[in-house]
Amino acid sequence: MFTITPLDCGLDAVEGFYSGATNVGMRPDASQGDVAFIRSEELCDITARFTTNTFQAAPIVHFNRYPQGFQTNFLLINAKNANAMTGSQGVKDIETIMEALPSHLNAHNPIMSSTGVIGYRLPIPKITSAFQTLDFEGHHSDATAQAIMTTDSFKKELAYRVTLADGSHFHLGAICKGAGMINPAMATMLCFVTTDAAIPKADMESLLTEATEHSFNRISVDGDTSTNDTVMLLANRLSGHYHKEAFAQALNQMLFELAMMILRDGEGANKLVAFEVKGAKSLADAQKASMALSNSLLVKTALFGEDPNWGRIASTIGASGIACDETTLTIHYDDLLIYSDSCRELDSKREEEAYRIMKQPEFKVTCDIGLGESSYTSYGCDLSYEYVKINAEYRT
Amino acid sequence: MFTITPLDCGLDAVEGFYSGATNVGMRPDASQGDVAFIRSEELCDITARFTTNTFQAAPIVHFNRYPQGFQTNFLLINAKNANAMTGSQGVKDIETIMEALPSHLNAHNPIMSSTGVIGYRLPIPKITSAFQTLDFEGHHSDATAQAIMTTDSFKKELAYRVTLADGSHFHLGAICKGAGMINPAMATMLCFVTTDAAIPKADMESLLTEATEHSFNRISVDGDTSTNDTVMLLANRLSGHYHKEAFAQALNQMLFELAMMILRDGEGANKLVAFEVKGAKSLADAQKASMALSNSLLVKTALFGEDPNWGRIASTIGASGIACDETTLTIHYDDLLIYSDSCRELDSKREEEAYRIMKQPEFKVTCDIGLGESSYTSYGCDLSYEYVKINAEYRT
Repeated sequence: MFTITPLDCGLDAVEGFYSGATNVGMRPDASQGDVAFIRSEELCDITARFTTNTFQAAPIVHFNRYPQGFQTNFLLINAKNANAMTGSQGVKDIETIMEALPSHLNAHNPIMSSTGVIGYRLPIPKITSAFQTLDFEGHHSDATAQAIMTTDSFKKELAYRVTLADGSHFHLGAICKGAGMINPAMATMLCFVTTDAAIPKADMESLLTEATEHSFNRISVDGDTSTNDTVMLLANRLSGHYHKEAFAQALNQMLFELAMMILRDGEGANKLVAFEVKGAKSLADAQKASMALSNSLLVKTALFGEDPNWGRIASTIGASGIACDETTLTIHYDDLLIYSDSCRELDSKREEEAYRIMKQPEFKVTCDIGLGESSYTSYGCDLSYEYVKINAEYRT
Repeated sequence: MFTITPLDCGLDAVEGFYSGATNVGMRPDASQGDVAFIRSEELCDITARFTTNTFQAAPIVHFNRYPQGFQTNFLLINAKNANAMTGSQGVKDIETIMEALPSHLNAHNPIMSSTGVIGYRLPIPKITSAFQTLDFEGHHSDATAQAIMTTDSFKKELAYRVTLADGSHFHLGAICKGAGMINPAMATMLCFVTTDAAIPKADMESLLTEATEHSFNRISVDGDTSTNDTVMLLANRLSGHYHKEAFAQALNQMLFELAMMILRDGEGANKLVAFEVKGAKSLADAQKASMALSNSLLVKTALFGEDPNWGRIASTIGASGIACDETTLTIHYDDLLIYSDSCRELDSKREEEAYRIMKQPEFKVTCDIGLGESSYTSYGCDLSYEYVKINAEYRT
């Protein structure tokens, strides 16, 4: 028995971690930070999941140069510049910046994470100027969560207290960013989770992989994959307590909620739609069809237009290349049967009900392939005029 | 030696073919047809390439029920209703319609082609009412090309006269439709080519496959694949003349020009961009990266925004899963080097030149992977507010 209690204070909930942000002029609005940090009193074990993009950004290359199983106590984050496609110079620039860290921090194997425009070197003097103004002894989760935003319209942070049967407890805190470019493989999203749970290193790896697979890897805004995607778990073990099942549940819930926040903040998106594909011949088929639906431009624009026509749903499944048959397929919007072999044309009553369902901010599309036992659910959003506007204008 | 001369008269250029259209009230604007036909005095050999979508529309199922190598002299086409996802009833409906064809036409193995909304049965009485008003002895390529349009903003027809060294000649004519949903596998496009060349049946198959592969299979508006895509070649051989190389060149040129028309008519599109990927390790890699570029939402919106940042191009190549390396990659916009290992940041002079190139209605992006000898070119367009508007509102 255990309970998971949401707290309001993000990273500040977790024992022994400090965080904060400052503005060094990379972002025009000085009230929002552009350089941030997360650090721990004690050395942390660290586990990370990175982008599948071949062109991994310099911070990821830098991270991977440390020996397997390294520990750290310091993470620096910047917005407005991805330090991607910057070659070996981009990695050297990180080293230069890290060498300028104040010695009293005792930064051990310091790591970096970046988000922003691709193809420009980091402005080193600007970034190191942050070391004069950052409050390294402070707890400023809010400011940190704000500093890492790019096209996000709201900051994303969560904290949980996990209380075990004997009354002992531990914490998880997280900040996250991501709004556009979000795809099946976590494009341009950053997520940093801290914990004081006494989690064994082996559990960190498997539980983070599992939680990522059921959250960030199942959402799609536009099907593109960035060079910088990162999900990180830092554990300093200061609480002294741990319970595997409880931790797993808290981490799964945390990453899933953050993923849904990203989707709700999808650039210009107004609707969150779950695409459940079941009855598929294999898990691979179920996943392929589900992700095809959450990625399809025509499905996305139909969602935006609140058009109950199931033709684009069916067509997308047929185009996905999975085993399927129009006589065994059924499609539901929430609980409303919208297509089956014996029920193809929408009468006006069902069409009206379908409109009502589609007008909701969140609903579910269930496609039963009718050929097997496998299922997979992914999550998508609609595509609006705003998406085009944001992505046509976004750079500086 | 041969010459290919463009003519103005579309299908009307080809000996022994008749075509025409009429409005039976499926389309509100009565000045534009919604039912059309193409027929030949003599029996034709026929070759077709159909959609890769598993849910092939009823007309395709109907076509494939005829014995291999069948001949026909009659094709009926309708707009506004795809007769897709209509099950076995959809095929029966075609048979019912064909039985109502006037007997004086001597329709032999008549075939049908449809475009429009998915999931509704054809309005049989409306469609057969067309048989009272269609001018079966007329040459009305223009009206036929107009009748098959859906979201197309202009009609697409072409005709060539091919003159051989001895002065003999033959013709090719074509009409085509497609504007949205166009993807790597010819989504929701119809193309009908007629010829009076004395082409052997075996050449029809191989030359149509080749010409389709270099045209319709290389364009992308939004990466979706429809249930109805069709490219058809009908040959009545009435000219008595043929020259394989000349015919192949004319057919390739014809389908390529039609594909570019579709792309220029991409829903809301303003720019036509060729994405050449060369120096890839394999043809599969070159094709994968090239199609990823012409399909990427982020690349498409950057084209619309005329943003010369090459970051999204590079990121899309890295995300495509092909063998690549940022130190061997180079990117050009037309002849302007925009990225290489030693030239990453755009100075203001090159940025200005890049802007100038991107403002053109057509330009070329060349990505040299620098790892091999394989190349592939696909063609894409930008994504504008108009695309979202058209696809959010399109159904009835």
